[in-house]
Amino acid sequence: MIAILKHGTTEAQTQHLVDWLKQQNLDVHISEGKEVTVLGLIGDTSAVDMDLLGSLEIVDAVRRVSEPFKKANRKFHPQDTIVDVGGVKIGGGSFAMIAGPCSVESEEQIIEVASAVKASGANLLRGGAFKPRTSPYAFQGMQGEGLKLLLKAKKATGMPIVTEIMNISTLDLFADVDLIQVGARNMQNFDLLKELGKTKKPILLKRGLANTLQELLMSAEYIMSEGNEQVILCERGVRTFETFTRNTLDLSAVPSLHQLSHLPVVVDPSHATGKSWLVPPMAYAAAASGADGIMVEVHNNPSCALCDGAQSLTPPQFDQVAQKVRKIREVLA
Amino acid sequence: MIAILKHGTTEAQTQHLVDWLKQQNLDVHISEGKEVTVLGLIGDTSAVDMDLLGSLEIVDAVRRVSEPFKKANRKFHPQDTIVDVGGVKIGGGSFAMIAGPCSVESEEQIIEVASAVKASGANLLRGGAFKPRTSPYAFQGMQGEGLKLLLKAKKATGMPIVTEIMNISTLDLFADVDLIQVGARNMQNFDLLKELGKTKKPILLKRGLANTLQELLMSAEYIMSEGNEQVILCERGVRTFETFTRNTLDLSAVPSLHQLSHLPVVVDPSHATGKSWLVPPMAYAAAASGADGIMVEVHNNPSCALCDGAQSLTPPQFDQVAQKVRKIREVLA
Amino acid sequence: MIAILKHGTTEAQTQHLVDWLKQQNLDVHISEGKEVTVLGLIGDTSAVDMDLLGSLEIVDAVRRVSEPFKKANRKFHPQDTIVDVGGVKIGGGSFAMIAGPCSVESEEQIIEVASAVKASGANLLRGGAFKPRTSPYAFQGMQGEGLKLLLKAKKATGMPIVTEIMNISTLDLFADVDLIQVGARNMQNFDLLKELGKTKKPILLKRGLANTLQELLMSAEYIMSEGNEQVILCERGVRTFETFTRNTLDLSAVPSLHQLSHLPVVVDPSHATGKSWLVPPMAYAAAASGADGIMVEVHNNPSCALCDGAQSLTPPQFDQVAQKVRKIREVLA
Amino acid sequence: MIAILKHGTTEAQTQHLVDWLKQQNLDVHISEGKEVTVLGLIGDTSAVDMDLLGSLEIVDAVRRVSEPFKKANRKFHPQDTIVDVGGVKIGGGSFAMIAGPCSVESEEQIIEVASAVKASGANLLRGGAFKPRTSPYAFQGMQGEGLKLLLKAKKATGMPIVTEIMNISTLDLFADVDLIQVGARNMQNFDLLKELGKTKKPILLKRGLANTLQELLMSAEYIMSEGNEQVILCERGVRTFETFTRNTLDLSAVPSLHQLSHLPVVVDPSHATGKSWLVPPMAYAAAASGADGIMVEVHNNPSCALCDGAQSLTPPQFDQVAQKVRKIREVLA
Repeated sequence: MIAILKHGTTEAQTQHLVDWLKQQNLDVHISEGKEVTVLGLIGDTSAVDMDLLGSLEIVDAVRRVSEPFKKANRKFHPQDTIVDVGGVKIGGGSFAMIAGPCSVESEEQIIEVASAVKASGANLLRGGAFKPRTSPYAFQGMQGEGLKLLLKAKKATGMPIVTEIMNISTLDLFADVDLIQVGARNMQNFDLLKELGKTKKPILLKRGLANTLQELLMSAEYIMSEGNEQVILCERGVRTFETFTRNTLDLSAVPSLHQLSHLPVVVDPSHATGKSWLVPPMAYAAAASGADGIMVEVHNNPSCALCDGAQSLTPPQFDQVAQKVRKIREVLA
Repeated sequence: MIAILKHGTTEAQTQHLVDWLKQQNLDVHISEGKEVTVLGLIGDTSAVDMDLLGSLEIVDAVRRVSEPFKKANRKFHPQDTIVDVGGVKIGGGSFAMIAGPCSVESEEQIIEVASAVKASGANLLRGGAFKPRTSPYAFQGMQGEGLKLLLKAKKATGMPIVTEIMNISTLDLFADVDLIQVGARNMQNFDLLKELGKTKKPILLKRGLANTLQELLMSAEYIMSEGNEQVILCERGVRTFETFTRNTLDLSAVPSLHQLSHLPVVVDPSHATGKSWLVPPMAYAAAASGADGIMVEVHNNPSCALCDGAQSLTPPQFDQVAQKVRKIREVLA
Repeated sequence: MIAILKHGTTEAQTQHLVDWLKQQNLDVHISEGKEVTVLGLIGDTSAVDMDLLGSLEIVDAVRRVSEPFKKANRKFHPQDTIVDVGGVKIGGGSFAMIAGPCSVESEEQIIEVASAVKASGANLLRGGAFKPRTSPYAFQGMQGEGLKLLLKAKKATGMPIVTEIMNISTLDLFADVDLIQVGARNMQNFDLLKELGKTKKPILLKRGLANTLQELLMSAEYIMSEGNEQVILCERGVRTFETFTRNTLDLSAVPSLHQLSHLPVVVDPSHATGKSWLVPPMAYAAAASGADGIMVEVHNNPSCALCDGAQSLTPPQFDQVAQKVRKIREVLA
Repeated sequence: MIAILKHGTTEAQTQHLVDWLKQQNLDVHISEGKEVTVLGLIGDTSAVDMDLLGSLEIVDAVRRVSEPFKKANRKFHPQDTIVDVGGVKIGGGSFAMIAGPCSVESEEQIIEVASAVKASGANLLRGGAFKPRTSPYAFQGMQGEGLKLLLKAKKATGMPIVTEIMNISTLDLFADVDLIQVGARNMQNFDLLKELGKTKKPILLKRGLANTLQELLMSAEYIMSEGNEQVILCERGVRTFETFTRNTLDLSAVPSLHQLSHLPVVVDPSHATGKSWLVPPMAYAAAASGADGIMVEVHNNPSCALCDGAQSLTPPQFDQVAQKVRKIREVLA
């Protein structure tokens, strides 16, 4: 971390600041230039409050030289992390083809969709049991009952499953879930992240609606700093001024996260766009951008889905998507 | 709710859709125009999935005629709600002057600040005990210990207190807290909202970083639909492309929320701007926009604050802010 | 266009509004529902002021049923428009591989880059002569002199050229330019658009930093309504809260624009990301999303470029991008 | 400007970069820290390409120490600039009360509105003659004819006038206009700014829809660097995700611009909100934030206005706004 002092700062003022920084277990390297004096802070600056430092009267600006995340940082962990989700590897060249309905609705539905997407090459089954909904009056998911049906589909098809947790008090119900999803609205629910960091379950961490890549990595760091390093990042669109699509899918996040971090990155084109006809081109683009997986909503009868049907593919549509995604990955291999 | 059908929709298709809607306990009024056919959905449409309806092949667009929030809606509750926080009234002409340090740091600090801001006219004491921080390595607040100190300051000064809850499992600790704050990052932590809806405590609900006014009101609805109608809304800046200020304070939210809802609206200029010298002009502007209160960070020694000192006022600075805010309110009375 | 009247509107008020609308040459179809009355406006509503209509006391909401753009609208022109740029076809299955330096710097440079990118399969040469720069103190391009060098490169290589116009007063200099670019900052310079609509030159219209797809199409409409229908749209990233990338490339714009309009859509991954290492993955993703072309900055010596070198590829890097883009297009064919 | 070199940079690489920087007439001060080496660039760095420098392989980050604007910078011009607009002073404690219709529609209309707002204390008359409209099919203003009517109103009432220029080719028509407005969409029409910089007319420069404060000041710099230092800045709302208001009025821009620059800052609450009932509270808030003026749309018959009537006040509404704004300014004096 570097602090740039204002022109005109006295030697006494500088010394006072240096002493204060040293009290925080930092070494300080002073570099006096013609126009500015720069303090180099050496040591563990991850707990230093940049805003506070920058607000001091003699400080012009404060800049981080190193990223504030450590365990998620590729600099300290050059090899790709490969997460094993119930036997399916994700990252480091292994691709996750995650598919399934937005919400689990019935045993028949979830098993039918699971069998269909498996036949098309999906290797993970998704399905919502606990649903975060903007309105308290909207369908909130089948909850615990939905989880049980999802586990039946897992048993019937042998596919590992991924589903969302909204409340740490329900953790016991997730004992046989292979990959626990943290939704966009909970990306900065730090208490939930800490608790998940104490489990040994792989975590799928979705980017928040208006969160930067650095904030996403800091949230991964919350999980990892508690001991659980099995984190998969997920880009699912950010909120912008554009209203034609539900969100704006930020595919540059994929290579950017790969550069900053060793964690796998998957893309959810269904929630990002909110329109089923936009899902195939965005799934192809996600694969072409280098993603380690895609997560796609598939429903056997989209027009009757209880929620989010607007963005679901039919099984035949998904089959074509899966085929082309594989071919695009071959081109890039 | 209105569904506009595409040109060329057949009578049979229309009838099929109407039947489906009627199964959802809705009455449907069909209006055939020269260019378009419009279906008027009559009944409780708050649970209807607009996105799904809009995704049907024959539907061109779907529009809500009425807002999806009910209990928070001024249409059904024209009078201003006045929330009583430990004897201090907020809303309907009564103004909340909330002040205190970002974080509780010591008994001496919190009592000193509390006494100072009370002398300047503050009627509620704020102080963070549980702190949501982007980094797991940053100071997370004094937690339970901080709450105890805050309660000591309440006892010493007689001021009701407001502090943030991050996790419903800590609710017992808030038994003597007068106003429980839900932070911006938890605005859509729906499980937390529901649990707070079951308490009888006044709730201060902060707008999320990238949430619309309607989403804020839907989150209020989550609390209110469980039986707790003592909700105070708080504008604290939204995230935009501008980087000079930490967030962009959206003061048009104040009169807009007053038009849409009967709930009181307070403004937090400290978190919105992140710079202490921006707090006074934004506090004046908040009062001038018609806010029912302001929430301001005050610290007896900002340059030593453990967090967020950059945006804190000193007690003398706050004293001047409080005086001018009162005068501006007189102008508008 | 549909106007939804407020509950409680009197018959006389409704009639007054209907009369006013009829004065604007519109037919009005009144549909009285149980809860709301809906007016259907029939005729050419493209000049109706939605905001004004919506502000009337008796009007609850106004919704457009049809898009406000006509000539750019796929509904009225189902086939893809194919633009012929100096013999190179763009759109309807024909792909534009546009490459070249950000700025023309010297005859040697532009011809060397042109030859290199042509050898790799580029079919159009880009090069900036007039440069829009945020700072008046930054290099503003070689201007007229740059245009001459670009024309020399065209002659030397046979490649059609594309370059940006900033001011209609320089139009004469563009007589031999094959494709005239309107930059993001001028997307709503309506006087410039109108003048370009009077020429017979193909126009490359870049999306503004914070403009919606509909606004982009309305700007295309400005050009087309003056008689020039040879417009190519260009997605080049939008401004969001994310600071890691210069802009956020919105690839969902590609299939969205294809659905809304018949005009070709190309993607500029260089300006969108601002980092050369992000250009290849975003170029692949653009091709996979169905774009009709990509526009990539290539420089023979990026670290010495006078501007925007940070986002330029070297000729060998571009060669690999071009190869993979072709293969991805084969997968999707 | 400071360049932070990557860990592991060799001495030869550093020297190569230093030589390159010196070729650009910069002095370089090298400071070798334990973890990083920092180069301090001394001299006129306003033309240095930060992005290019930052893209070099050995460079980790580049930071500006000083702002890239000079003539607009308060550091070099501590006193408030006071702009004289036809005898009306703006800035440095003098307040501009600018009012008038969105569009000039007739001689009767403009004179009637002008007389009314003058009686209420307005000291400048606004009125649109050339109107930037998103749609080519919408009313584009009365253009030259409108300007003539505006000048008649100036003559009749003695009020200086402000109106928008869209195209430098119409400059001759603005000979008797007192304050020339550059609209939000033209804030980065750099050629227009340069030409206006060559005139001696005061310029009202509106912030672009998605432009930062620094970009606004750089656009002011374009005008000022050509010799015209009579620039007034205008905040008129920025584009965000919120759709309830047309734009999001950023009032923190007022004290922020005052800190960064010596130029006067006025606020336009009418265009920012798009709703007449939001104009009074936002006008009060603007005054309370320390603005040097407000610009408000007033129409004698809002429901018949040809454009933007939705956001216009009636003369009696404006009268009340003007009174309260004056009182709020007294509180802050």
